[in-house]
Amino acid sequence: MKQPIKNIAVLTSGGDAPGMNAAIRAVVRACAYYNVKCTGIYRGYQGMIENDMVEMGPRTVKNIVNRGGTILKSARSTDFRTPEGRKQAYENLLANEVDALVVIGGDGSFKGGLALTKEFNFPIIGIPGTIDNDIAGTSHTIGFDSALNTVVDAIDKIRDTANSHNRLFFVEVMGRDAGHIALNAGIGAGAEEILIPEENIGFEKLIDSLERSRNSGKSSSIVVVTEGDSIGKTVFELGEQVKNTMPNYDVRVSVLGHLQRGGSPSCFDRVLASRFGVKAVESLLAGEHSMMVGLLNDKVVLSPIEKAVKSAGNGVDEELIRISDIVSI
Amino acid sequence: MKQPIKNIAVLTSGGDAPGMNAAIRAVVRACAYYNVKCTGIYRGYQGMIENDMVEMGPRTVKNIVNRGGTILKSARSTDFRTPEGRKQAYENLLANEVDALVVIGGDGSFKGGLALTKEFNFPIIGIPGTIDNDIAGTSHTIGFDSALNTVVDAIDKIRDTANSHNRLFFVEVMGRDAGHIALNAGIGAGAEEILIPEENIGFEKLIDSLERSRNSGKSSSIVVVTEGDSIGKTVFELGEQVKNTMPNYDVRVSVLGHLQRGGSPSCFDRVLASRFGVKAVESLLAGEHSMMVGLLNDKVVLSPIEKAVKSAGNGVDEELIRISDIVSI
Amino acid sequence: MKQPIKNIAVLTSGGDAPGMNAAIRAVVRACAYYNVKCTGIYRGYQGMIENDMVEMGPRTVKNIVNRGGTILKSARSTDFRTPEGRKQAYENLLANEVDALVVIGGDGSFKGGLALTKEFNFPIIGIPGTIDNDIAGTSHTIGFDSALNTVVDAIDKIRDTANSHNRLFFVEVMGRDAGHIALNAGIGAGAEEILIPEENIGFEKLIDSLERSRNSGKSSSIVVVTEGDSIGKTVFELGEQVKNTMPNYDVRVSVLGHLQRGGSPSCFDRVLASRFGVKAVESLLAGEHSMMVGLLNDKVVLSPIEKAVKSAGNGVDEELIRISDIVSI
Amino acid sequence: MKQPIKNIAVLTSGGDAPGMNAAIRAVVRACAYYNVKCTGIYRGYQGMIENDMVEMGPRTVKNIVNRGGTILKSARSTDFRTPEGRKQAYENLLANEVDALVVIGGDGSFKGGLALTKEFNFPIIGIPGTIDNDIAGTSHTIGFDSALNTVVDAIDKIRDTANSHNRLFFVEVMGRDAGHIALNAGIGAGAEEILIPEENIGFEKLIDSLERSRNSGKSSSIVVVTEGDSIGKTVFELGEQVKNTMPNYDVRVSVLGHLQRGGSPSCFDRVLASRFGVKAVESLLAGEHSMMVGLLNDKVVLSPIEKAVKSAGNGVDEELIRISDIVSI
Repeated sequence: MKQPIKNIAVLTSGGDAPGMNAAIRAVVRACAYYNVKCTGIYRGYQGMIENDMVEMGPRTVKNIVNRGGTILKSARSTDFRTPEGRKQAYENLLANEVDALVVIGGDGSFKGGLALTKEFNFPIIGIPGTIDNDIAGTSHTIGFDSALNTVVDAIDKIRDTANSHNRLFFVEVMGRDAGHIALNAGIGAGAEEILIPEENIGFEKLIDSLERSRNSGKSSSIVVVTEGDSIGKTVFELGEQVKNTMPNYDVRVSVLGHLQRGGSPSCFDRVLASRFGVKAVESLLAGEHSMMVGLLNDKVVLSPIEKAVKSAGNGVDEELIRISDIVSI
Repeated sequence: MKQPIKNIAVLTSGGDAPGMNAAIRAVVRACAYYNVKCTGIYRGYQGMIENDMVEMGPRTVKNIVNRGGTILKSARSTDFRTPEGRKQAYENLLANEVDALVVIGGDGSFKGGLALTKEFNFPIIGIPGTIDNDIAGTSHTIGFDSALNTVVDAIDKIRDTANSHNRLFFVEVMGRDAGHIALNAGIGAGAEEILIPEENIGFEKLIDSLERSRNSGKSSSIVVVTEGDSIGKTVFELGEQVKNTMPNYDVRVSVLGHLQRGGSPSCFDRVLASRFGVKAVESLLAGEHSMMVGLLNDKVVLSPIEKAVKSAGNGVDEELIRISDIVSI
Repeated sequence: MKQPIKNIAVLTSGGDAPGMNAAIRAVVRACAYYNVKCTGIYRGYQGMIENDMVEMGPRTVKNIVNRGGTILKSARSTDFRTPEGRKQAYENLLANEVDALVVIGGDGSFKGGLALTKEFNFPIIGIPGTIDNDIAGTSHTIGFDSALNTVVDAIDKIRDTANSHNRLFFVEVMGRDAGHIALNAGIGAGAEEILIPEENIGFEKLIDSLERSRNSGKSSSIVVVTEGDSIGKTVFELGEQVKNTMPNYDVRVSVLGHLQRGGSPSCFDRVLASRFGVKAVESLLAGEHSMMVGLLNDKVVLSPIEKAVKSAGNGVDEELIRISDIVSI
Repeated sequence: MKQPIKNIAVLTSGGDAPGMNAAIRAVVRACAYYNVKCTGIYRGYQGMIENDMVEMGPRTVKNIVNRGGTILKSARSTDFRTPEGRKQAYENLLANEVDALVVIGGDGSFKGGLALTKEFNFPIIGIPGTIDNDIAGTSHTIGFDSALNTVVDAIDKIRDTANSHNRLFFVEVMGRDAGHIALNAGIGAGAEEILIPEENIGFEKLIDSLERSRNSGKSSSIVVVTEGDSIGKTVFELGEQVKNTMPNYDVRVSVLGHLQRGGSPSCFDRVLASRFGVKAVESLLAGEHSMMVGLLNDKVVLSPIEKAVKSAGNGVDEELIRISDIVSI
């Protein structure tokens, strides 16, 4: 691949996550620190195809470390799935004299980057950015910690009203196929029961658990449910069925929705994003490619990006399921 | 009615609202200040029937001024709708030597209190507590200001992701039949369009407005919708129909739900609740009854509670509709 | 004065306050709505002298309604206090074809605007923006409500640690010569005692009050103090003296400082700023000048700006002092 | 030591930290889960000496997972430093049939626990709870993550006003002798320079750095300073000296103070505290003692409590100093 690298591009792709701006800022400033040019690409791969790029200097990214969303915007690109689209994208990179690319996003975004490497020998490094924390090769993705704080803050508010009325609330949180948000935020918010895709406890066990809760003197209860289906039902079906099974319960359902993706990032995510952004630039300058930056055992490390793309996430921590059972007694 | 008043009871009823605890605290401490006993009734009129009461002193209410929900809890009572239920309730008040009652809640809660006055000549004073701000006789109900902050904070987060993806979001907020929350939070959150029950703009005007927004260069849009039906549809139907009408829009729907009722009250609501609680006690001690405490022209005043019960809320400020049109240009 | 008005300038001056950006946005968008040009002036009167101006359209102010600070920045200008400076400023306004000016700031900022009117017959309208709420002619200045929420949030945090250690905290808040912030935030945060410039209770009464608090069973106490001197001492001297007088107290001092000026504005301030901005533009277009927009009895009204400049603020509400005494029992 | 363990006591000691309540809750509920009694001791070792203890069941700790401070309160105890005090404390433990103790606090608190083990063969386990993160044997102490979020939130607010006025702010944060808070919050808040006790950069290098910042086009700057002295001066002396050296700077100083210790804990701290609390109980039941629970490489592990007591904290991550230099360019 081309060496030396004199111009690094950066884009965000897929669902946005708090901290993406802090990662963009770190990439841009690390480029400035190492005296290489930095090119921002708007709207992910779609912007690459449409040649929607801009040169970025250290002052371009001032006052964004604390902003949610992504100043480079994100988009899904169907054009990029075609060979013609990718060819056009590659030619635009050349036309802008871009030598390497940092992709901030999830596994789908990394796949797009890998295609550029395979087809055009173009070097990329991935930075895991998604609130779902479902990427192999890192214990934490950018945005996960912020989303957890947003979710517990929302459930704290719901609990105020749940307590005031002795109610049972089903609260649906994000996570795609991964229970990380539900499990961590469920423990953090003091949920009585947590339903995650990784562990189908079944409807009967749920009812048992809720009855035990009530009998133990709890006057209100929160059940955190991962989006999609947890025990084979939508959260509304689940609420309805519990209402029918336990008619003296005052059951409510709340779907937290997209507010989980936004907001000012937590300090943890800002620092993580800063470390990841610097590492991505330094890795490219050191000749690395096709790798993902990640946090393992509190250290920033590289791992093959293929692993993140092919593996089914990083699994929930079984210990947390056990902890959840104990502290919700 | 009985004079002098030596024991004042307080209850919360109906939907809970941030600041109710601050109001309870003010009632309890005003009683202590004027050397009368104070009796807390749990779970509203249902607790009155079940004799679920406790004596409250100034230290009972410490550290609650900043708590959402209500430490006295709230409940709907079907028993209280029967003459037998009300008779039992009244007898429990007598048995606890309670001489007067402060009711914190909405119009439904006030109706219950008035029944006690009419049937048993028992003095009550109402304090308007509901996030919906739909009570005649006060410019602000307790909880309204806090709910507005919660809603704009949520929409700020949604806007992060809307901006990152150039999306159109329909965000449903609470308000029952009143557009106060939608109108104020919509202006506060910079919504492009606000749908309120008081003004059915119709589907065509909505589409016109959205197209004008897009043509004016806006890359993302937020439409705030009051719960229930605004232009004759649920928010999900509305989103679907807009998607069909404007297929190149990326439309999403978010229902904020019960988190709007919770959370630590704003300073405004804490101060308002403190003023209302003191005024309620002082009014009862001065021989007043069947009145509601309210804020009019920035002054705490009394008005007949019948007015709050019979009138259809206090109407939205037409000026705000106009302001909303101008600042969303 | 010149008619018709085709170009309205806007500036922010003096201490910044949350909601100033929402006011700028409303001015800019109202100009667009009424088809007049809008010119932003950077760094207040200093930028006017240095001709630091830019044309602003409705998209220039997108996504700022929720931002603290002021995108037009603020500065103190010594040059503007000289006749030469003001002449230069006026000539720059003419050179930019500006016909009228909206000044967002406090009484000092209004004085500067009035000078332009007196010396050059140039029309201005003022919008009161300061966290201190010390402007005659309006019940609320932009930023006051946001600062109150910031202060109660900070004191809520301090109370956590005060309660855990049974401590007495003196917390200094902003307000210049006015006790509005201290009084409202003190009630909102459940302070045991509130020291404001308008009412010097004296050291003995403070000690009496603290001893009564302790004797009544309170394990921790918060005293809110307005910056400057409240009872003739700095907050540090006060803390020291109380420590010497009541040696078994664990006394701490916290000065909240500049964080009170920042942060995302409350919904109240965003709506207020939107109303004020629209009204300012509409008033200028209607031929008004030398007036200040204000909120009186919940209505947006005009009053002579001279009044705001000459009067010593708007006085604290005596009722609140009384309420504070009662609810802190 | 005594086996089997049938009654575990828990106390909090030293400075309070967000998440201590979540840890108490986890200890209490883990005891309930394993069918052993749980005894809460108020006000740390002082309460142990004064026999201020209470039996705690799972419902005793409801709705505290999200509360700052500690419901068991904390206190310094001079009595416990005497052999008589410790003997009295031990006898009270026996009188309450307590078999083992969980100490939540910092190194000073652990020392007290170790004294009980050494003198009376009484088993204890420590849980590291302090915002300073200065305990060897764990990568994160309870409260550290929450404090970081509180600090970046405060600095975000200060930056609003710094930007509006092109100012240079010195912001002092907590940390005792450790720069963890300053370093992480400084990176998170986008500080231009971070002064920590572990690295005395000297006054000249600070001035160089600030001049480089200004020359690179930054209009405002934040310098984060650890409490105590960083380069041999208080933060006020430092501000004064910079003002004298760079007279055209508008320099301000803000000391964040005790608000850093309070507030609702972050999700991270709630989960961490839950894991630590369960592990502490399980370790005691498994016969462990004189150990501290900690997080190393994302796993909850035990390490000898002596290590935490004797070692000088866990050192700042050198990588972060480097990252800070790069992203603040």
